[in-house]
Amino acid sequence: MSAPDVYLRSVGSALPGERIDNAMLARRFGQNRLWEQWVAMFVGTSSRYLAVDLDTAEVRFSLADLGETAAHAALSRAGITAQDVDVVVLGTATPDQLMPATVNLIADRLGINDVPTYQMQSGCTGALQALDVARQLIASGRHHTVLVLGGDVCAKHFDLSVEFGDRSPGEQINALLFGDGAGAAVLSAEPGPGKQVVVRDLFVRFTGLGRPPGQTVEWFGLADRGADRPGAFEDYKAIELGVPVLAVEILDELLDRTGWAKDELDVVFPPQLSGRMTQTIVKEMGLAPATREVSCVAQTGNNGNALPFLQLEQGLDELAPGSRSVLVAVESSKWIKAGLALEVAYSKG
Amino acid sequence: MSAPDVYLRSVGSALPGERIDNAMLARRFGQNRLWEQWVAMFVGTSSRYLAVDLDTAEVRFSLADLGETAAHAALSRAGITAQDVDVVVLGTATPDQLMPATVNLIADRLGINDVPTYQMQSGCTGALQALDVARQLIASGRHHTVLVLGGDVCAKHFDLSVEFGDRSPGEQINALLFGDGAGAAVLSAEPGPGKQVVVRDLFVRFTGLGRPPGQTVEWFGLADRGADRPGAFEDYKAIELGVPVLAVEILDELLDRTGWAKDELDVVFPPQLSGRMTQTIVKEMGLAPATREVSCVAQTGNNGNALPFLQLEQGLDELAPGSRSVLVAVESSKWIKAGLALEVAYSKG
Repeated sequence: MSAPDVYLRSVGSALPGERIDNAMLARRFGQNRLWEQWVAMFVGTSSRYLAVDLDTAEVRFSLADLGETAAHAALSRAGITAQDVDVVVLGTATPDQLMPATVNLIADRLGINDVPTYQMQSGCTGALQALDVARQLIASGRHHTVLVLGGDVCAKHFDLSVEFGDRSPGEQINALLFGDGAGAAVLSAEPGPGKQVVVRDLFVRFTGLGRPPGQTVEWFGLADRGADRPGAFEDYKAIELGVPVLAVEILDELLDRTGWAKDELDVVFPPQLSGRMTQTIVKEMGLAPATREVSCVAQTGNNGNALPFLQLEQGLDELAPGSRSVLVAVESSKWIKAGLALEVAYSKG
Repeated sequence: MSAPDVYLRSVGSALPGERIDNAMLARRFGQNRLWEQWVAMFVGTSSRYLAVDLDTAEVRFSLADLGETAAHAALSRAGITAQDVDVVVLGTATPDQLMPATVNLIADRLGINDVPTYQMQSGCTGALQALDVARQLIASGRHHTVLVLGGDVCAKHFDLSVEFGDRSPGEQINALLFGDGAGAAVLSAEPGPGKQVVVRDLFVRFTGLGRPPGQTVEWFGLADRGADRPGAFEDYKAIELGVPVLAVEILDELLDRTGWAKDELDVVFPPQLSGRMTQTIVKEMGLAPATREVSCVAQTGNNGNALPFLQLEQGLDELAPGSRSVLVAVESSKWIKAGLALEVAYSKG
């Protein structure tokens, strides 16, 4: 059974507050110039956007806030209104609350009603899981226009009450790596009036059998909020070893499934943990000289499920008719492979 | 486009520990016989199963534990193994952690790998959302056999350190209403060797535009775990008024979509908040005398996304060939309607 084409009609995004560079973080955390240089060299992330105010610790943006803004941008670029949307899907690791699901708060704010809404709980491949579910809802013939959202806000775990020097090395790195943000896209059974971006392939697959989690993020309840356990844990060694290998496997699989040659790729959107990590991964991928790599984590920080949307937003405008691009995402929490292949069709008009 | 039939091959479930009746709760909370009678009359829930040990406050079961057990039961009843599963979908409001998604921990324990896994964050309609996504993945032609899971464990918010008398009335009611559990089902493009239970209709739709949440469940992070806000909030008045109305609307819509008459229904699986609430809803539905109502909340407590599986497990065995049944679920957190229509086909063999 051959599925009908699905089109990526538009992408939008939202980043909270002002750009926080490493000098601002250094000031807040009482660190010196040497530290800044160390961050630039070993982490490679030069700025991020945070939902929390660094000075007052006030949380100024929720995921619902950012999702709503990103959705407006995507809808407006697609030239449609919220009333045209017949499904909403959100991918996030950090919902504002456990209930209601944040996707429903966003739908409410957009004036959307009487449509299915889904929220995928997922780490860095949640954006692609949301896109994948959206694509299959369209392919099953039951739905037409899906608003897909992804984003993360780590404010609840961004604990400014603890002195930076008192944190474990892992917690210190997390404070540099992560940022907040949201993205949105419109997926549709029909191309819009402008450029026709066709989803040629999209897969998301669990690959963590027997493999310890590379990353865990906890939530605390009333009964265990006094528990002495960290909010997040990262096995950076496992991530550093594992992600580039998986990224290459995903790229190869996308090429295999689409029948495209590697040197035919116009743009590659690589997985992003940090600026430095992305460079390593891109090197491992061995791209052709003409292939452009589009990433943003060095400027936006790792804002999880917002990242693929931010990358696509940055790269899509420049894609010419006939161009081919792939997006590769890896979740290291319990190891998930995800890949997306896009082709800009020649306009039939 | 007419979608292919999808079959509910089997259902399984898992409840933690021993049955906790109201007398046991009364003893633990220092309440008397009068209180027990009050619970029986106004809540109508006579027992529940808890992941936490009432005496030691030790958490003895995770959602992954219960999900794994329920999955084994469902797979075994469907006469298949984990290797036959090509997608896993879990619906829950209370994942064990934010990352990894609990669905991936369950997949790992079952020995499942290299398949898509999805986890829907949702209140009491998460089980139907998971079934709905599963159904559409099969209908899109890309997948064949989906392991669908649903469940909730409220242990993290079940705070035994606070004296019962010091709790707000809402918190006291919650301690009576809720329970823990998980369920699982196998959905497939092909019927199994035994009874053929066909999914005739299945919908899940957000209906909360402009409507305040009837229920919220928070999670706390490192940065806000000291915050003085409740873990959960229920607007019982809104729920009591809203749920029966929605339940009747869902029933009518299911009848309309399937073309079935109300008096043709053999079994109705109603929404369940508490034993008493279920009675009220069933009365509102105005079922024909021959229609049997199957619910379990009075015995199992409200264990959220496990409930529909527990109901189906209890009712399916007794359904004769040709019988028609509907399951109605309502999420009151931000108001979602969900309905499922099942028909037992006459065997073609």
